[in-house]
Amino acid sequence: MRYNLAVIGAGPAGLSAAVNASIRNKSVIVFGLDSPAISKTEGIKNYLGFGTISGAELNDNFKKTLEGHDIEKSTEKVQQIYAMGDYFAIILKGDKMIEATSVIVATGIELKKDLIGEDKFFGKGVSYCATCDASFYKGKKVVLIGYNEESVEEANYTSEVVDKLIYVNMYKENPELNDEIEVINGEIPVEFVGENNPTTLKFKSGKEIEADGFFIIRDSSKPERLVPSIKTDDEHIIIDNNCRTNIRGLYAAGDIAGRPYQINKAAGQGQVAALDAAKYITLVESGKFTKEMW
Amino acid sequence: MRYNLAVIGAGPAGLSAAVNASIRNKSVIVFGLDSPAISKTEGIKNYLGFGTISGAELNDNFKKTLEGHDIEKSTEKVQQIYAMGDYFAIILKGDKMIEATSVIVATGIELKKDLIGEDKFFGKGVSYCATCDASFYKGKKVVLIGYNEESVEEANYTSEVVDKLIYVNMYKENPELNDEIEVINGEIPVEFVGENNPTTLKFKSGKEIEADGFFIIRDSSKPERLVPSIKTDDEHIIIDNNCRTNIRGLYAAGDIAGRPYQINKAAGQGQVAALDAAKYITLVESGKFTKEMW
Repeated sequence: MRYNLAVIGAGPAGLSAAVNASIRNKSVIVFGLDSPAISKTEGIKNYLGFGTISGAELNDNFKKTLEGHDIEKSTEKVQQIYAMGDYFAIILKGDKMIEATSVIVATGIELKKDLIGEDKFFGKGVSYCATCDASFYKGKKVVLIGYNEESVEEANYTSEVVDKLIYVNMYKENPELNDEIEVINGEIPVEFVGENNPTTLKFKSGKEIEADGFFIIRDSSKPERLVPSIKTDDEHIIIDNNCRTNIRGLYAAGDIAGRPYQINKAAGQGQVAALDAAKYITLVESGKFTKEMW
Repeated sequence: MRYNLAVIGAGPAGLSAAVNASIRNKSVIVFGLDSPAISKTEGIKNYLGFGTISGAELNDNFKKTLEGHDIEKSTEKVQQIYAMGDYFAIILKGDKMIEATSVIVATGIELKKDLIGEDKFFGKGVSYCATCDASFYKGKKVVLIGYNEESVEEANYTSEVVDKLIYVNMYKENPELNDEIEVINGEIPVEFVGENNPTTLKFKSGKEIEADGFFIIRDSSKPERLVPSIKTDDEHIIIDNNCRTNIRGLYAAGDIAGRPYQINKAAGQGQVAALDAAKYITLVESGKFTKEMW
């Protein structure tokens, strides 16, 4: 299935992008949870159009803007986005794939810090997708650090594939895990240690665990892990005035595209990205796009 | 009177800027009419937070966001903005002046085209402020092209100073003008002709009028006429990702800062500009601003 536009993220930037592209008669799919971070914010005073309003209420109002538009929503997790030239291949969890002519990345930003060594060992023993990579560790010992609901499902799956799974619980009490999984509670992971590959996970308490592979399951990850070869300033995707990134057809909007982390700014960038994307999509689909246009 | 921030324009970019600066405890004055262009728009579908809504209604909602904030509003017309280093001198009609540490230009954009020769003769016989420049034409013959309500007042004042005033009426029927003013109705002015100074105004019909000076009174004018030495791409003020212009302390947001001409984008840029301006103001007022910071 090829959509005109895939929007990754359903916060203000993503929703604004989806509506604006839909108004321009583009087929749109939005990936993301119904209640992103904004829902937890109280007393927002500076979104133009409302007085002081809670994030949850503002979010409900945002959904009004989507009513009557033919926008597909999905809560499936986007694993990776590959630029194929005239389209993007978007890999979802469980090896599903969809295609889109243009993509807007509006994932927001995770304010948590990486573990030490996480970046260095990514792809060499540290992975963000157990469903994708567990099979490399058949008969081996694996640690999975779980920060969200999804972690439980990932851990249960992985435990069926590997020899031994240790689950580092960073989310909620009493996760519903298979019996054979060893659970570590109340410890804060800090650092991966190893030569070419990570061999040990160190905790803040001084505790250490050795393993052959390490999985980290959390809501979002660095943009360059989502989109290979995307240009960033380390924290944010670099965009121009039209929210274009260095990859043709790919846009970024909202917190992931830089400070300030604010709702009006995010919604505005979503709009700018979608309107430029609508033009780009028309050019590509009519065969009129040429390289110097990006 | 020196304000922390002066916002020029009371559309979505200006209002968003004012609220955000006020939340950051900055003293703010906003110049602009209560009902800018947006009020005339019907059926806005893409401002996140509302379904389909009229411009007038959306504008009313925008005002809610300003409630409870100590923001000064002024409908006086800003004639020119001079950068003085650590502050700006803002010249109002009638030679009044206020000062502000930082300025956000959010005037929107006039979709009308210039007359031929208007740019070339600006300051050499073509002026946008009769109140300011009428005295140069004592005992002479002057043409005033009036596009708005204000033109009538400007014409009446000018007629008392100059020898003869011809009023080219581009606004509404039967303007209340002094008896000695000659009125031209139903003619479209097209071009100023002259050597170093304009001597003749040509109309579409072929009609011509000779005069010593020419005034054009309309709602907004090119940014470089408002702010000397501002960098533009001819139509728009050039800004960076923080909405900074080439002049330190001066920001632009909304339509005047580039396409798309959209409300969410404007409100977002107003927010970005105000939050950066708040930091800039703090730096300047604490004496910690250094040149390389802009």
